[in-house]
Amino acid sequence: MSTLHETSLVIDGLIVSKWGPEVFAAMQAGGLTAANCTCGIWEGFEASIDAIAQWKLWFRAHPELLLQVYTPDDILRAKAEGRVGIILGWQNSVGFGEDLRRVPLFAELGLRVVQMTYHTANMAGSGCLESRDRGLTDWGHDLVAALNAEGILIDLSHVGTETAADIVKASRQPVAYTHCAPMALKEHPRNKTDAEMRLVAEHGGLVGVTMFPPFMRRGSESTLEDYLDAIEHIIGVCGEEQAAIGTDFTQGYTPADFGYLLRDKGYGRQLIQPKGAVFPPDFGRIEQYPNLTAAMERRGWTAARIARLLGGNWLRLFREVWR
Amino acid sequence: MSTLHETSLVIDGLIVSKWGPEVFAAMQAGGLTAANCTCGIWEGFEASIDAIAQWKLWFRAHPELLLQVYTPDDILRAKAEGRVGIILGWQNSVGFGEDLRRVPLFAELGLRVVQMTYHTANMAGSGCLESRDRGLTDWGHDLVAALNAEGILIDLSHVGTETAADIVKASRQPVAYTHCAPMALKEHPRNKTDAEMRLVAEHGGLVGVTMFPPFMRRGSESTLEDYLDAIEHIIGVCGEEQAAIGTDFTQGYTPADFGYLLRDKGYGRQLIQPKGAVFPPDFGRIEQYPNLTAAMERRGWTAARIARLLGGNWLRLFREVWR
Repeated sequence: MSTLHETSLVIDGLIVSKWGPEVFAAMQAGGLTAANCTCGIWEGFEASIDAIAQWKLWFRAHPELLLQVYTPDDILRAKAEGRVGIILGWQNSVGFGEDLRRVPLFAELGLRVVQMTYHTANMAGSGCLESRDRGLTDWGHDLVAALNAEGILIDLSHVGTETAADIVKASRQPVAYTHCAPMALKEHPRNKTDAEMRLVAEHGGLVGVTMFPPFMRRGSESTLEDYLDAIEHIIGVCGEEQAAIGTDFTQGYTPADFGYLLRDKGYGRQLIQPKGAVFPPDFGRIEQYPNLTAAMERRGWTAARIARLLGGNWLRLFREVWR
Repeated sequence: MSTLHETSLVIDGLIVSKWGPEVFAAMQAGGLTAANCTCGIWEGFEASIDAIAQWKLWFRAHPELLLQVYTPDDILRAKAEGRVGIILGWQNSVGFGEDLRRVPLFAELGLRVVQMTYHTANMAGSGCLESRDRGLTDWGHDLVAALNAEGILIDLSHVGTETAADIVKASRQPVAYTHCAPMALKEHPRNKTDAEMRLVAEHGGLVGVTMFPPFMRRGSESTLEDYLDAIEHIIGVCGEEQAAIGTDFTQGYTPADFGYLLRDKGYGRQLIQPKGAVFPPDFGRIEQYPNLTAAMERRGWTAARIARLLGGNWLRLFREVWR
């Protein structure tokens, strides 16, 4: 592990993995300081409560390994104590059910990132795989205001183009694509155009770059160098201070788990045919973050740039948005 | 009570009242054969299950008074036995939560009418008070198919214009406005244009006419005669076989109950300012259905027309849609 990796804050904008002691150990082995850990995708209110309840059990069971992140300073504390900071986040807003009066309750429990829609339309707006993006609904406007009021970061990664633009306009706070890849390098409904990313950056937000192979130019042939190319593209579009890491690692996922992700509401229409994803041998697992830092160093990026990309930019955004 | 009222099937396309023994007695006193009884408006899955569970308790507690309607023949049985047929219906589709796999379960419990949206946007589409109607979502298309498969009547009364048109096109079965009033007589966002009503009628559906005073030409000055004028207008637009009764009676409702109806999701944005509604003295309560039949007779309507309007048309539609 390079000295730079060891001394840097390493913050992943989004991981959705098979949570449990194995993945927690992988996060620590990879030198990860903190990550936005998905604990809700298609789940409604009760299942979303249960998922957070399970995290609370894990925090009690693994105090040497995990630290729940409520504030930006908790991330620094995790770094200092050699623990992994867990930021609880949703990839959908249906966990609130129909009731925005639950937003403060979830904020108190530590929910810090909420994506407005996942793949398709919900009550708030449209996802990027909905056949027609309908924009932010009236309730969606109220949801933006409620999230702003609690200082919960709004994520647009799976949100449709028009809905995302409405949200950027409606939000009093910067928002983020926690995990996405550039459309300029690969045509894919989940990828973002330069204009979409620039809009978020210009409003003070961040673009976390994923290296999920189907979103990459060379698909399952992609290497860690291709990932750096994608990051460099986004730096070129948004600036070095508006880009970050958001791997979207799915460690431990089974075909059944992917099936859940790729069907509407987890059970319905098949939204995308899973084609299989082969990760590069040196960056396909959470333990391999040090390889990312090493590749950045090999490419001759300055220490300042690497520090920003690896975690500094996320920390700055969290300081601005979280209350 | 006129002989015609006593011998007719009297079916109300929608009542939303303070359910309980008092209202049940009023239904029997009014000579009501059956009614689509709202048991879900803003409620999510669990509260919607609870509401139906409560109805099951009432059916057991009042077997001499109530009969749950599962089939069209149950309506005839209610008439023969002098009981009131209770058709369970929702004014929203959020009771399914996010899971359409629950539709057959609710069908088995006797849910027979489901309105797609109530006032605002939900996952299926937009309501008539949403600032911009966005049309039927992909999930909304799946919901239409699921309701069709179970033979649950689709209600469009509070649905937005574009979403309603999408639903008429998508549904393999006729659909209904269970309770609405003509826009031609009164400009109101809840009222329906002639074109909207004609579209439903041309696809074999029915338009139930409400006499909720704020939707009537003369507001709280409206009389039973104004109600007959509204019915005649709709007969003129849709035909005598496509019009019916859907009073929208809110017997026993308190200001708090109306507050729940008129705020988004029951607690949010005020959607309409409640202005108060004064019903005509001879048709403001469920006990007064006989006055409606008498007024139709006074106007010289034929017995055949009256029989269709009072209940025959609903029975025909239920026979066509319900499995």
